[in-house]
Amino acid sequence: MNAEIISVGTEIVLGDILNTHSQFLSRELAGMGINVYYHTAVGDNDRRFTGMLENALNRSDIVFLTGGLGPTTDDITKETACQLMGLECHYDEAIGERIRSYFARSGRRMSENNKKQAMVPQGAVVLQNDWGTAPGFILEKEGKTVVLLPGPPRELQPMFLQRVKPYLEQKTNGIIFSKNVRVFGIGESLLEEEIVDLVTSGNPTVALYAKTGEVLIRVTAKAPNQQQAEELVDGMIGQLRERLGNTVYGIDVAGLNEALVAELKRQKKTVATAESCTGGMIAEQITDVPGSSEVFEMGTVTYANRIKRDLLGVSEQTLQTVGAVSRECALEMARGLAQKSGADFNVAVTGIAGPSGGTPEKPVGTVYIAVEHGGKVWCHHYYFARNQKERDYNRTQACLNAMNMVRLTLTDPKIYEEYYE
Amino acid sequence: MNAEIISVGTEIVLGDILNTHSQFLSRELAGMGINVYYHTAVGDNDRRFTGMLENALNRSDIVFLTGGLGPTTDDITKETACQLMGLECHYDEAIGERIRSYFARSGRRMSENNKKQAMVPQGAVVLQNDWGTAPGFILEKEGKTVVLLPGPPRELQPMFLQRVKPYLEQKTNGIIFSKNVRVFGIGESLLEEEIVDLVTSGNPTVALYAKTGEVLIRVTAKAPNQQQAEELVDGMIGQLRERLGNTVYGIDVAGLNEALVAELKRQKKTVATAESCTGGMIAEQITDVPGSSEVFEMGTVTYANRIKRDLLGVSEQTLQTVGAVSRECALEMARGLAQKSGADFNVAVTGIAGPSGGTPEKPVGTVYIAVEHGGKVWCHHYYFARNQKERDYNRTQACLNAMNMVRLTLTDPKIYEEYYE
Repeated sequence: MNAEIISVGTEIVLGDILNTHSQFLSRELAGMGINVYYHTAVGDNDRRFTGMLENALNRSDIVFLTGGLGPTTDDITKETACQLMGLECHYDEAIGERIRSYFARSGRRMSENNKKQAMVPQGAVVLQNDWGTAPGFILEKEGKTVVLLPGPPRELQPMFLQRVKPYLEQKTNGIIFSKNVRVFGIGESLLEEEIVDLVTSGNPTVALYAKTGEVLIRVTAKAPNQQQAEELVDGMIGQLRERLGNTVYGIDVAGLNEALVAELKRQKKTVATAESCTGGMIAEQITDVPGSSEVFEMGTVTYANRIKRDLLGVSEQTLQTVGAVSRECALEMARGLAQKSGADFNVAVTGIAGPSGGTPEKPVGTVYIAVEHGGKVWCHHYYFARNQKERDYNRTQACLNAMNMVRLTLTDPKIYEEYYE
Repeated sequence: MNAEIISVGTEIVLGDILNTHSQFLSRELAGMGINVYYHTAVGDNDRRFTGMLENALNRSDIVFLTGGLGPTTDDITKETACQLMGLECHYDEAIGERIRSYFARSGRRMSENNKKQAMVPQGAVVLQNDWGTAPGFILEKEGKTVVLLPGPPRELQPMFLQRVKPYLEQKTNGIIFSKNVRVFGIGESLLEEEIVDLVTSGNPTVALYAKTGEVLIRVTAKAPNQQQAEELVDGMIGQLRERLGNTVYGIDVAGLNEALVAELKRQKKTVATAESCTGGMIAEQITDVPGSSEVFEMGTVTYANRIKRDLLGVSEQTLQTVGAVSRECALEMARGLAQKSGADFNVAVTGIAGPSGGTPEKPVGTVYIAVEHGGKVWCHHYYFARNQKERDYNRTQACLNAMNMVRLTLTDPKIYEEYYE
């Protein structure tokens, strides 16, 4: 089955907004075994949109139309699609009532033109929108399927996952089920080598996506029912865990910060941070997770040497002999932080983020990370050499590795035994 | 003149990568007065790409092709475009030499298939690529222009700005020159009302782009030469400044953090932060700017009440009567921080980011920001009510407003006189 995606909106072709729908839908459809051959975007122009949709219906089995379902006269997607496909529209009382009560809940009054959103094409499957006012629609005619979805991402994404996907699964006589395995601490090529036989095994499919500093593995199974699909996916995840060990940090989590906060909560432990080159990024990442106040004790950003000394008790000798970017300084920062914070884990980072500040002995990208736990400290020396100029890359890598060191200590008792001094 | 953009690459239609080129090019072209009517993306497939390009040449004056200029057999853009336009290709020694020396510099050997990148279509304008190996090309035939650009954004963007833009300007007999005016503290609709006559004035054009918590105004002039274009742009910026006062925080800067660090440097002042609900975001944003170590003294993330008390000296009475999210607490945090940091500006934030933790008196989105300067303190109470569930939105708003309060004190003496107590 071949699909294509048409994004409708003048704001897209003007470059005012970034089109993220095409990527989202393509990835989802690829996971379901549906090929996407074309992405197109066109403004709110009747003639140009009609030409594009006509083309699409000639060459694809399913056409996704995103955007242009709003209440104003600019919003032409539904009307134009129906005209081209020869479908009448009628006003639907129930949908009108939903929209009216949606406005009432947010203390606003429904305007006359919102009624446009309650017009339903004849024979259409209505996709109820619990995230906004415009319902979506699935139109079927002469073997072709047209799916209309609202433009805002926070409406489109749940609409696809909860309304369209089950419909397509039913059409293809089976369940498609995915889980995302999150991996940190192994490069994409090395990872692919480790699991190349699993990547090519068929059902479930295993797809790799490189993200900043980590890899996402998407495991997708097709089966006659949900239980069988889940069993297939979980079986594959078991095999991945066996191969990849503790580089797997979570299943269906948003990121390392979420996985770390969840594990700290589970074990009722707390964490504190002392940051130099990351400048608050670790604290920011941890506190980005709702409910992190249970596990986050305190953070310090000790940029100036004087502050490292006064706030964390780093010795004048260390600062003057080996300098602030050193193993010794990281260790003293972590121990000093532990005294102040009383947290179970005290993580300290010092390094050279760039673009300037590097020396031949300590080039940009040099970072020391120390974690204090139970009176002992583990320090690791990193060198992020991908591109010495990339301040943001170096800071992000340092931040992720700091969170990962705490995670490893929490989840793998051997780490504490072997690495902590 | 009408243009369209075709992005070539299977990784795009599979959803593996996000297509950002279409937005970049559209915005640039809009600034030059060139209308973009279509964006399309297609995989590395000869037949589908040919069909798409044929279509594009029928309906548009300029067609931009991005991606598919690499060395492998997958990379079909140049070959397919030449075939369709009936243009022969020949090997260019000079380009071959450039590619060879590019590889030599990075310690690698040029492979046989890299020679493909040195093939030049007959009559093409060659766009030298100083950011990678694949040169770009401009092909002209029968009144149509086809521009071929390499796929990686760090190559495509400078190639467009430094190679293609001057060519198009020459073609249109004039210089196009833009500056970006950054505005904080006034909503997009209100701003548009203030400057509606300028927005519709013609040359220079004035375009508004809403960004998170702020607005970007792009002023673009067309003139016979650079000097005249700059005069037009600067004249308009003068008018904008007059209307918008101190909500204008910078011209051609990356963001509020960069503007703040630049102003602190200029005045040789330093800043320190005490963050609760922003969790380190302000420190992270300030230290994200290269060279910020000159102006950033220290940061603290005082999440727990105990830490607010021990580290910043917030009184037990304040915490127990009015609570941590209060004007009193913000003021005490800022004063306590000033004692520890010795910085010129000490900014403290306390609030409720959500999604939970709100009460009827202090709903999610309630934030107090205090800035200490010269022994006096200015505290402002914010309520970011757009969506109570949006933790990220509330944190970002608090962070931006905190930086803005420091900026206003630095740049507007009246602020200190009127607001500080």
